[in-house]
Amino acid sequence: MKYYIDFEPIGKRGRLSSEKLILDHARELGVDLVNICGGAGICGQCKVQIISGDASPLTTNEFGVLSPEEIAGGFRLACQALPLSDCLIHVPPESLTSPQRTQVEGDEILTYPVDPLIRFYSLKISSASVEDFRSDTEQLMEALHKQHQIKATSIDIKSLCDLPSLMHDGNRQTMAVVRDNEIISFHKSDARKIGMAVDIGTTKIACYLVDMETGRTLAAKGIMNPQIAYGEDVIARIGRAMEHSEALKLQKLVVDALNQSVKELCDQLNLNVAEIIEAVVVGNTAMHHLFLRLPVKQLAMAPYIPAVNTHLDVKAREIGLHICKGAYVHLLPNIAGFVGADHVSMLLALDAHNKKGVCLAIDIGTNTEICLINNKKTNHKKMTSVSCASGPAFEGGHIKHGMRASNGAIEHVHYEEGRIKYQTIGQMPPVGICGSGILDALAQLYKAGIINNSGRLSDDHPSIRNNDGQLEFVLAGKEETNNHKEITLTQKDIRALQLAKAAIATGITMLLESQGLSDNDIDEVVIAGAFGSYIDVASAVAIGMLPDLPIQRFKQVGNAAGIGAKAALVSQRHRKESQDIADRTEYIELAASTDFMEVFTKATLIGPV
Amino acid sequence: MKYYIDFEPIGKRGRLSSEKLILDHARELGVDLVNICGGAGICGQCKVQIISGDASPLTTNEFGVLSPEEIAGGFRLACQALPLSDCLIHVPPESLTSPQRTQVEGDEILTYPVDPLIRFYSLKISSASVEDFRSDTEQLMEALHKQHQIKATSIDIKSLCDLPSLMHDGNRQTMAVVRDNEIISFHKSDARKIGMAVDIGTTKIACYLVDMETGRTLAAKGIMNPQIAYGEDVIARIGRAMEHSEALKLQKLVVDALNQSVKELCDQLNLNVAEIIEAVVVGNTAMHHLFLRLPVKQLAMAPYIPAVNTHLDVKAREIGLHICKGAYVHLLPNIAGFVGADHVSMLLALDAHNKKGVCLAIDIGTNTEICLINNKKTNHKKMTSVSCASGPAFEGGHIKHGMRASNGAIEHVHYEEGRIKYQTIGQMPPVGICGSGILDALAQLYKAGIINNSGRLSDDHPSIRNNDGQLEFVLAGKEETNNHKEITLTQKDIRALQLAKAAIATGITMLLESQGLSDNDIDEVVIAGAFGSYIDVASAVAIGMLPDLPIQRFKQVGNAAGIGAKAALVSQRHRKESQDIADRTEYIELAASTDFMEVFTKATLIGPV
Repeated sequence: MKYYIDFEPIGKRGRLSSEKLILDHARELGVDLVNICGGAGICGQCKVQIISGDASPLTTNEFGVLSPEEIAGGFRLACQALPLSDCLIHVPPESLTSPQRTQVEGDEILTYPVDPLIRFYSLKISSASVEDFRSDTEQLMEALHKQHQIKATSIDIKSLCDLPSLMHDGNRQTMAVVRDNEIISFHKSDARKIGMAVDIGTTKIACYLVDMETGRTLAAKGIMNPQIAYGEDVIARIGRAMEHSEALKLQKLVVDALNQSVKELCDQLNLNVAEIIEAVVVGNTAMHHLFLRLPVKQLAMAPYIPAVNTHLDVKAREIGLHICKGAYVHLLPNIAGFVGADHVSMLLALDAHNKKGVCLAIDIGTNTEICLINNKKTNHKKMTSVSCASGPAFEGGHIKHGMRASNGAIEHVHYEEGRIKYQTIGQMPPVGICGSGILDALAQLYKAGIINNSGRLSDDHPSIRNNDGQLEFVLAGKEETNNHKEITLTQKDIRALQLAKAAIATGITMLLESQGLSDNDIDEVVIAGAFGSYIDVASAVAIGMLPDLPIQRFKQVGNAAGIGAKAALVSQRHRKESQDIADRTEYIELAASTDFMEVFTKATLIGPV
Repeated sequence: MKYYIDFEPIGKRGRLSSEKLILDHARELGVDLVNICGGAGICGQCKVQIISGDASPLTTNEFGVLSPEEIAGGFRLACQALPLSDCLIHVPPESLTSPQRTQVEGDEILTYPVDPLIRFYSLKISSASVEDFRSDTEQLMEALHKQHQIKATSIDIKSLCDLPSLMHDGNRQTMAVVRDNEIISFHKSDARKIGMAVDIGTTKIACYLVDMETGRTLAAKGIMNPQIAYGEDVIARIGRAMEHSEALKLQKLVVDALNQSVKELCDQLNLNVAEIIEAVVVGNTAMHHLFLRLPVKQLAMAPYIPAVNTHLDVKAREIGLHICKGAYVHLLPNIAGFVGADHVSMLLALDAHNKKGVCLAIDIGTNTEICLINNKKTNHKKMTSVSCASGPAFEGGHIKHGMRASNGAIEHVHYEEGRIKYQTIGQMPPVGICGSGILDALAQLYKAGIINNSGRLSDDHPSIRNNDGQLEFVLAGKEETNNHKEITLTQKDIRALQLAKAAIATGITMLLESQGLSDNDIDEVVIAGAFGSYIDVASAVAIGMLPDLPIQRFKQVGNAAGIGAKAALVSQRHRKESQDIADRTEYIELAASTDFMEVFTKATLIGPV
């Protein structure tokens, strides 16, 4: 009876205490589903998708509310379905009362020249006459050449379909959208010139619409990566995608989500999706490959070789992206199997190759990529990157009361006068603890001597109790939570956190060693990415995850990968630089190094290095 | 009750004499449908598709035999359905007892150097190692460069999907298929190197599989263009395709038919369709545009301007053609709205631009294209083309007992000692008369004085009778036909033929005039195309359709457009020449000329010019 239910992409998991509807169980775990009809099964708002596991048969109400496609896809009403086994349940964003926190903003460090590959040319087009039998294409090419001194060599075959009616029916005015030597589209003379930048993270996707003339971001949206329900981290995702049909399903999930996001952003701006004439997409190598339907199996097996590293240009329609029909998607280059285009994009956004001194650039996630930029000596510009398997602990994974950053998550913890104080997202009663809170808790308990440097919980603190043989520290008491259950940090949680922080610290140490540098040589530590934006740097330093440097040397820059994607969207120079960064960055495989285990073991100790 | 039933693509039409099943009516008209179960409605062999018109409700037998898709598509069993209105009925090839005659062979005049744009490189590929983290793409590009001194710049995105397993799982052997600078596919080292050439005619489609290493044709197949049921001639077809959804349907019909033909040809040769690595497609401008889903409306309105004339390269998958997934379709250039890539291809096959002297090249069809190649003076190479609306008479259209070339069609007629002798296709009892027979009949009756030079039938011949006020000449008596009905040539038929032959004769006359030449300057008349292969040239000269020249100056070359497509498939030089031919050929719009009507009126007279 005690089935284990996993709600994704929230990341809340728990055992059923008794036979219970999905809706009630979600409530108990603090997952707030929309429920307008009060559980009568008629409003259809609490739709969830059962990815794996069994539930009670469909009710008549569900047949009334769900479409046949939804039923075939495993959708249920949470207020009608009773789990009959362990279940993995996907909660679509529209079924949640409040959205999850997704970071899309980043510090715009770069000033980028607006110099896109795409150009727009307003044209007056003359019609054919009885004396002039040249084709529409020839007439147009001549107009482009005569009026703008531009020689295009081809027209996208789908856009060519629009040409005859422009030449013969319309007002003889059009705007040719030219990319390199190809005319990719014909727009109305007053159409907006919009591009789209996307950062596909394993957990989150950020999507930006950008004015191609000014480089300004017009609208942005963060969503959870809908693939989460099919594998939380990259390795699990790759495992799922081994089967070709599953890989195609995962690709479609992301593309459908992108199409929907783009549609929503366009609606906000009163734009047509066809006005988006270019997309730049970044992501880690696995996300990159899945997006392109490239196989990923080899990414999970040593020596973790990508199918392709160089930048690519692919027609958006080949991928299923519904933007301008002749548009391309430009994919920034990858560096290695676990150092992808998102890392390149981050480095581009940080203007890394032009930095002076020594800089560490870190994007913390289930996989953490770190680049050491060593421009200490003049004319010696070296970039070296590593990838660390930091695991899902910072996303709330494998942590007893862990969850992703959404309403009710404890995001900050402070220990004062023998008592824990915490802050939750949305100032709601606590339902779990997310990454930044976990980090704080570890640091605070360590500083207070409740956890020693080997990670052991002391057993003589009033907030510590023994639960079934395992010590745990009570962060929030029964009386504070809605479901009258305590939120704790267990000894096992601490072990998981030690492994996570050790992975990152090992990466930093070995990078520095490879260049004969030490902590003190570092002029700047740039922390990018959503998780990195929310953490308390002092906590990260306190536990020894980040180097023990003066706090002013740290800089939290938000979604730098997104910023880099935007730069590559509107600037040819930055697009070229991104390939240059990828070519110049040396990749070091940590696990291949002989002293890896030694360094790692040492790094599991808590406390400043 | 007397519904008019039109069986396509056979082109047999007639009124129902009484309430009658489609099968029985087809028999009466000489359309032989397969009928294994004797009309019991259980073998499902006599499947036909009702394109327009009503028929009796579906029988239980039909529900048993036809699939839901077929029922939705208007398919019926001819032995079960009773017409309830005028009907246009499409007969799929598999429902006919004997195939229609389609010309695919042509004289291979050209000797083409086998020099395809596509190259094949056998590669030994080394796998990545712990010291070498470069991507599969980089490894492969290096192998190609080291082993063959070839620098490729990109890999087709769909073919890239095959690379990781080649690099990591296989026998480390592959054959890279390179087109220009793009790797379009990876094949097994022993894969065949096959290309495909296609000539899409308004009535017939010819499809060839060619060995890309030797240039040899391995297999060929002619099929009827399945679009026929949606409009017999180009203008009707364009009319139908004005609506975008109909245009898409027409495109799919052709592509589906091509896919099926290719599959059959591959099965014959024990090939996989994925081994076809390039296609060259030619067709008249309307067929070209429909194939690419380009709009065709403007092709039917003065000044008849194509969307594009230059040659094009389009990924086969963008068009829906199931060959090698990275393959391209190369489309030869068009010249004008009614002088398309098939004309260019014919000129290429004839080596027209290298011909000496004066040559007329003619492709006779519902639209007849004529090129005058005038290389009389040294260093003066001029090619001028016209298009003549010769209409469907030579395809049996608008002729009372006309039909296309299939079993039972009278294909040759001779008048001797006051009596008509004829020959039918397949030596079957006559069921109608096809183009070559019609031409003979006109010539023979004219020579015998039964028709005068203005086209009037004499009224004092025993074979002439007055049917409802119209004179007609009985070619086959009741006793000779299976359905006991006479086959005649009517006064109205003769008028239609006069217009058709006048259109062609006018084109020739005006072309010669444009160059200041006369009939006697012509050194050679090349007659291309299926219809042109079967006609008796003497008959065509006798009625004044072709110039009155010694018979040895005429040459019937078969499907030259198909030959040209094959040449462009395997030879880069010929591909370039085809663009050169298109650029150099001047197009004259006949109807725009002031003396057009005068010349045309004179040309309607029967007899040698």
